[in-house]
Formats: sequence, structure tokens, C-alpha cells
Amino acid sequence: MRWRYIIYVVGVLTFFTGVSMTAPIFIELFYGDKNVFPLLNSMNIAIAAGLIPWFFYRKQAAEIDYISPREGMAIVALGWMFVGFFGSLPFYLSGQFGSFTNSLFESVSGFTTTGSSILTDIESISRGLLFWRSFIQWLGGMGIIVLSLAILPLLGVGGMQLYKAEVPSPVPDKLKPRIRETAMILWKVYALFTLVEIMLFLIGGMGLYDAVNHALTTMPTGGFSTKNASIAQFDSLYFDLVIIFFMLMAGINFTLHFQFLKGSSLAFWKDAECRFFLGTVLLFTIIISFDIFGTVYNTIGQALRYSAFQVVSILTTTGYATADYEQWPAMSQAILLMCMFIGGSAGSTGGGMKCLRIMVCFKYCYKELFSLIHPHSVSHVKIAGKSIPEDVVRSVLGFLALYMGLFAIAAILLAGTGVDFVTAFGAIAATLGNIGPGFGMVGPVENFALIPDTGKWLLIWCMLLGRLEIYTVIILLVPEFWRK
Amino acid sequence: MRWRYIIYVVGVLTFFTGVSMTAPIFIELFYGDKNVFPLLNSMNIAIAAGLIPWFFYRKQAAEIDYISPREGMAIVALGWMFVGFFGSLPFYLSGQFGSFTNSLFESVSGFTTTGSSILTDIESISRGLLFWRSFIQWLGGMGIIVLSLAILPLLGVGGMQLYKAEVPSPVPDKLKPRIRETAMILWKVYALFTLVEIMLFLIGGMGLYDAVNHALTTMPTGGFSTKNASIAQFDSLYFDLVIIFFMLMAGINFTLHFQFLKGSSLAFWKDAECRFFLGTVLLFTIIISFDIFGTVYNTIGQALRYSAFQVVSILTTTGYATADYEQWPAMSQAILLMCMFIGGSAGSTGGGMKCLRIMVCFKYCYKELFSLIHPHSVSHVKIAGKSIPEDVVRSVLGFLALYMGLFAIAAILLAGTGVDFVTAFGAIAATLGNIGPGFGMVGPVENFALIPDTGKWLLIWCMLLGRLEIYTVIILLVPEFWRK
Ligand SMILES: [K+]
Ligand SMILES: [K+]
Repeated sequence: MRWRYIIYVVGVLTFFTGVSMTAPIFIELFYGDKNVFPLLNSMNIAIAAGLIPWFFYRKQAAEIDYISPREGMAIVALGWMFVGFFGSLPFYLSGQFGSFTNSLFESVSGFTTTGSSILTDIESISRGLLFWRSFIQWLGGMGIIVLSLAILPLLGVGGMQLYKAEVPSPVPDKLKPRIRETAMILWKVYALFTLVEIMLFLIGGMGLYDAVNHALTTMPTGGFSTKNASIAQFDSLYFDLVIIFFMLMAGINFTLHFQFLKGSSLAFWKDAECRFFLGTVLLFTIIISFDIFGTVYNTIGQALRYSAFQVVSILTTTGYATADYEQWPAMSQAILLMCMFIGGSAGSTGGGMKCLRIMVCFKYCYKELFSLIHPHSVSHVKIAGKSIPEDVVRSVLGFLALYMGLFAIAAILLAGTGVDFVTAFGAIAATLGNIGPGFGMVGPVENFALIPDTGKWLLIWCMLLGRLEIYTVIILLVPEFWRK
Repeated sequence: MRWRYIIYVVGVLTFFTGVSMTAPIFIELFYGDKNVFPLLNSMNIAIAAGLIPWFFYRKQAAEIDYISPREGMAIVALGWMFVGFFGSLPFYLSGQFGSFTNSLFESVSGFTTTGSSILTDIESISRGLLFWRSFIQWLGGMGIIVLSLAILPLLGVGGMQLYKAEVPSPVPDKLKPRIRETAMILWKVYALFTLVEIMLFLIGGMGLYDAVNHALTTMPTGGFSTKNASIAQFDSLYFDLVIIFFMLMAGINFTLHFQFLKGSSLAFWKDAECRFFLGTVLLFTIIISFDIFGTVYNTIGQALRYSAFQVVSILTTTGYATADYEQWPAMSQAILLMCMFIGGSAGSTGGGMKCLRIMVCFKYCYKELFSLIHPHSVSHVKIAGKSIPEDVVRSVLGFLALYMGLFAIAAILLAGTGVDFVTAFGAIAATLGNIGPGFGMVGPVENFALIPDTGKWLLIWCMLLGRLEIYTVIILLVPEFWRK
């Protein structure tokens, strides 16, 4: 472990976090709001903190052209933690977010694109800070897609080892050629989607500020809103449809967008995971529509609209709300809870277990059944006609089991802080899957303010664990990791 | 698939189910209760139904000395279903259990050693019927341990393929030599434990009828009680301790009892799974004691007593209750919910995922972490120093994922029948793990009477799926299974 280099890279990330604060500062100045100095001070602290390792270690760092998987994982995990810490400074220094724990919770919730909030009155927060809250989700989402493919190679890092740590796809070969260039294109796709969404919001009559904020939190499947009532505030079919579309885009593997833009018009259809993802959306939307039609909504149109929005929002792990699904029938709630675990596609900005893993698991179980019927046959798990190596299948199944185990243990610990049974499980599902709202006292029309402080720290860890594919974070707890 | 042979074996099982009804008939006669004829008629029906295939197919069956895995699975799944059906006849014909659905639910709950009950007033049921209800749990438990090791070889069947289907141990070699003899010994161990428990109950002053019934439902980790308030009715520390001891015995791999009786005095200590099982009991008992001390109970002694009983009852999947754990703090409830999933040891009468699988999963995840740190090292999952083959590890992880997936889907379906959110998940966890009581409206002081009929049918399937290790039952749904 070349710690100097790791500190150097984490410093660079911290530096850019500081630089990014110029945007909210301008907005705060523009609107004449009062939190310019908290933002300015935070910027200075972050830039200074980032420059110190750069100053000492830049020469050694320039000589490094390969990083080990271990170093890569240390950079990913520590990078997200430090960026989360420095990102929380504006919140903390402004005093508008309460305690340091609250501020850190909100910041980590942003950078991990979770969207769980401790704010009880979002609209009372000054606009620069609210913009920062949205912007860190956008940066976090960029990190999720691009970090391992573009930023680290840009810093002179090999990258493939990090791809393994950061991109959950069990098929890590898709983007091998010209990683850096492709990654830059993906970043442009991400920015392009964001811009188009802003325009569509403006066309629909949304104010510029809200349009920018919501576009910045849709594409990373973040889900922070500038409104207390989230998207329900606008009560507009048009906005619902626009957001549903962009949430779906954000939940699809970004390499497919890249392929589509390169001319492969059937890219989405050809991808087995994408079909599974869209099929799941369709199936659950229909089932929930039937479940809420007549019981909650009086027209089938309304039932479809609210069902589709909530299914897409939860399955893509965005977490916007246009309805309080806790008032829906139990079956709809159970389906949404399952969506929290399934999550988006691998290579998207969505969290959760990822559709690809669920597919591998399905196919593996079917294969097991098949080999019980035909004990002497040899068969492999195939996705889109391509065999998945057996050790990859095992890793996928192990990940699913680990995810569930972690979920159970974290829920028990959260329950130990004094929250009720449903909230404990709901809050862990929501943070581990990077969704945002959960069930119980952290439902879609509530927030995380009433969770005890120890519980908030636990949830901060869950957000990081979920976002960084668990292993990258828990590896820090293994003594073996720190040896030599 | 030699269907005649399968029908023949299922017929034999049905025949013996009928013969077993002589016991409750004598008890009904002895107490002068009024349900002699329902029992007598059921016995005649079951014996007749069992004799018909015997009459037609006995000669062909006698020639068969090998069964295929497929045939074995068909026998296991259909056997349990038919026995469940014929076992329900006394309940249905007596009229004391209400609808046929209720009667079948109670019978399958018995034979699968689940212990979920639709009875709202157990003590109003005549004593012969209540004995039958306990006795079918005992028979079911015998089936679970012995079926694949003794009964099927007794019928001239190879057995090892069924061992694979029926005994969940990923290490199927333990009892290979002299399967039949060893199985008979295990059956004797099972009977011996039951007898000793009866004696200890009698010494403590329990009436003979209650003593026999509770011993018959402890050893199969069944959990049916003859009292409305379950074990809480006796309110006796002595009985609690006796039952805790025998539940623990029932939750340990029966091959260890066998080894212990053959003179290996350290058998329990030497077995990694047994250490894990007892360690889990100890850990959770201590944590829950702290959680309920001061909040529910005023002395540490009481806290320990009720904590230990409930932890052992749920972890071994027995399902007896001495306390309403739904009134306990959320953390204790969450731990008990996790216990429902962990379950007893492989090769015990306990249900759930089984400790051995959880251990394999733990060790595999640690191995994954280790190989992320040392990418070029080769390591295997080892239990007690013995490497577990990689495909067995994969099967175990696949089983855990399948279990969770099935849990989610079944809970959604149950919620669709109109029960609330917590009840849906609690009832599925309780039936899939063959525990008995769950959460919500099927908690430890309630019952399954208010679940809608479609829900009861779903739960019947969950009990069978959980008890027969899922694959044995879902394989019946694969068209491939029925071909040729
Ligand atoms: K989110
Ligand atoms: K049970």
C-alpha cells in the first residue's frame, strides 16, 4: 500500500470538491441569500486540505502508472468518505442543518446518490445550499459511472482493477477498449441527459432553479428535491412523465446509451438486462395499478400514473415521491419494498442489488433445477447467449447473500437505537439500496430527522456500503487489508 | 418416471398414516370424547386409499431396487402432500376445525412440523384429535430425519439420491456406511429423547396427556401445544428449562447424538456447526436479555429465562411461546425475525435456512474479501478443516438467494390477499421456515384463523416448500420434470 499516493488521490478529489463549491457560491450571491460565507469557508478548507498532499506527493504520484486492487479500493472508499466529509461543511457551517451528524448524513446521502434527508423544512434552506445538496448528487452519480473509467485513468491510474471494485457488472469486458475516451463520452451522455431534462422542465413551465435542481438529482438517481412535498408539489402529469423517462434512462446501463448514440438503434432491446429491467417496471406498474385502482385512486389513469412513477422511482432507486405509498394496500408496499432490493441496471447510476445479479440468480436457480432433473448434463448460466464463468456466478450469489445478511444485521442494530420494527427495516433497505425514503417513520412524506444520532451514523455507513458494492468498504475492516 | 412405483410408495405412506390413527382413536375412546367416528372413518379411508395401489402394483414395486433422483423427489413431495391430505380428514370430519382449508392447513402444518394453527380455542378440541395433531408432528419429524435414511431403503430404494433431496447437509458423506442401520438408531434416539422428556414432564407434575403431547411436539421442533397460551400456561421455570434443553437437542444434527451415544463424548464440541448453533443461541440470548431487562422484565433472571426460551424456540424453529415477543423492544423482535431465517442445524428436525448454510455463506464472503486483498492466492471454503467443493458452495449460496426470493414473492402474494404489511412478511417467514408463530396478526399469542382462505393455501405451499428444501417442491412446476 503506497499510502502517499492514496492520500494524494483523495486530496485531488477533495480539491475538486472545494472547487465545485464555486457554483453554489454564485447562486447564493445571485439570490442574495445569507450563506455565502459558510460556503466560501468550506471551499477554502476543502481546497487547502486537497492541496497539502498534492504539494508534498505530486512528484511521487506522477511516477505511478499502476495501482493495485487494494490501493484502488482504498481510494474508492476513502475518497467517498472524505468527499462526503468536506461536502458537509457548508451545511454544518451554515447552521441550517443542525448538528454535524445531520450535516454529514445529508452530505453522504448526496454523494452516494441516496437522497435520504434529515431536513424537515427543505424550502427554508437558502438556495445556494440547496443547490449544493443537489449538485453533490450529480457529482456522486458522475463518480459512480465515470470514476473507475475516466477520472482514475486521467490521474494516471490503470483502472481495470478499480472497474472491478466500482462497476458491479459481472461482465467487466464491455468497455475495455479505449476506456478513457469511452468514459468521457459517458460523462457527456450524462450531461446531455441532464441538459435535455432541464429544457423539458423549462418548456413545462418549471422555474429555472427548480428545473436545474431536479435534473441534477434525476440523472444520478439521487432524489433530493427542493420541495417539501418532493415531485408531488408540482402535481403535473407532464413533469411526472418527463421525470419517469429520465429516471428510466438513469436506471439503464450507460454503455447502452453510448452504443445507441454510436448508431446501434436496437441497443436497448438487444440487452438482456435492459429487457429484464423494463419488463420488471412494466409488470410491477400493472400489478400496483390494479391494486390501487378503486382503493386509492378512482380512475385507471390516475392509478397508472402514480403506480408508474413510484415503481420507476423506487426500482431505479431515485426516491422521488408523488404519492404516499404507505397509504397504499399492503401488496403494493411489499412490491415497492422488493424493488428497493432489486435496484437499477449494472453500470447505471441506480443502487440496490442490480438487475443483472437478480437475473444471474434466477438463471442459476433454474439451472440447479434442470440439473436435478438431468443429473449428468453439464450446463452453464448464460446471459444473452454468453456463458457466465462459474466463479462469477458464485460471486454474484455471494453478493446477494452478503447484501441480505448485512441488511438483517444493520436492521437489528438500528432497532437497537430505539426506532420501531418497520422503520428499522425500512430505513436500512432505503439506505443500503441508496433509494432515499423507506417505510415507517422514514416514509416518502417523512424524513430521517427523528432517527437517533447513533442510528444516523449507522445509516451513513449503510449508504457507503451500498453505494460502493459492500466489499470496497468492509475490506477496510479486515486486519489483513492493512498489513505490509 | 415409473409412476406406478411412485403411486405405490405414496400409497404405503398413506396406509401407515391410516394405521397411525389407531392411537388417537384409543385416546378418544379412553376419554369418552365424541370424535371416535370421524377418526375411525378417516382411518378406513386412508388405509383403503393406501391399499389400492399396493394391491395393483406390489409385484412390480418389489422388483425395483433403484430409484432415480427424479422419482425420489416425486415421492418426497407427493408423499408429504398426500399424507397431509389424509391426515386432515379427522379434523375435517369432526367439524371442529371448520372448513376443509382449515383442516388441511392444520394437518400440513403438523406434518411439516411447522406448528402454525388456525385454532382459536385449542382447549375446546376433543383430546383424541388434539393428540392426532401432536402425533402428526412427531411423525413428520421422524420423516424429516429418517425418511431418506431408513424408510426408503426399507422399501427397497437406493437412498443416496434422496439424501441429496431431503437432507440439507452440503456434506452428504457422514452417514454413508450402513445407512439403514444408522437411520434406525437415529429413530431410536428420537424416540428415546421423547420418552425422557415425557418422564421429566411427569416428574415436574404435568399431567400425562399434556406431557405426551408436548414431548411429541418438542422433538420434531413442531410447537403445537394443547394449551391456548402454549407453554406460558404452565408458568414453570422447571418446564421451561426442560423444554429449552430438548428444543436444543432437536435443533442439533442427529448424527451427533448418534456419535455421542457411540462414545464420542466430545461430538458436539468437535462439530463446527454445533458450536455455531450453540454460540448463536448464547449470543442472541444475552443481547435480548439486555434489551428486555428493565423494559419488559424487572429481574435479570426473568429476562434471561424468557429470552433464552424464545431464542431457542424460534432459532430451532419450534415455535412454542412463553412470552408475547411482539411486546418486546424492536431490536429483540428483529433478532427473532433473523432467527426465523437462520433455523436449526442441518440434519436436525429444525427448519429455516440451516446454520450450516449460514456458515458456508459467512466463510465464502470472508474468502472473497481475502481474495480481493490477495488476488493471486487460491483458497477454499473450509468447515472444520475440510474443503467444501466450489459447486457445493455455489449451491448453498444459490439456495440462500432462492429462499430470500421466494420469501419476497410469497409475502407479496400474501399481502395481495388483504393482510397487512407486517403480517404478510411475518406469516411467510414463519411458514417457510417451519417456525409456527410469526409477526403481526399471526404473532405468538394469536393464530392463523383470520388469514383469508387463498392466503392459507399459499401458506400451505410455503410450509411444504420450506420443509422439503424448496427444490423438491418447485421441481414439480417445471415442465421438464414431467417429460418422458
Ligand atoms: K436515491
Ligand atoms: K415449528
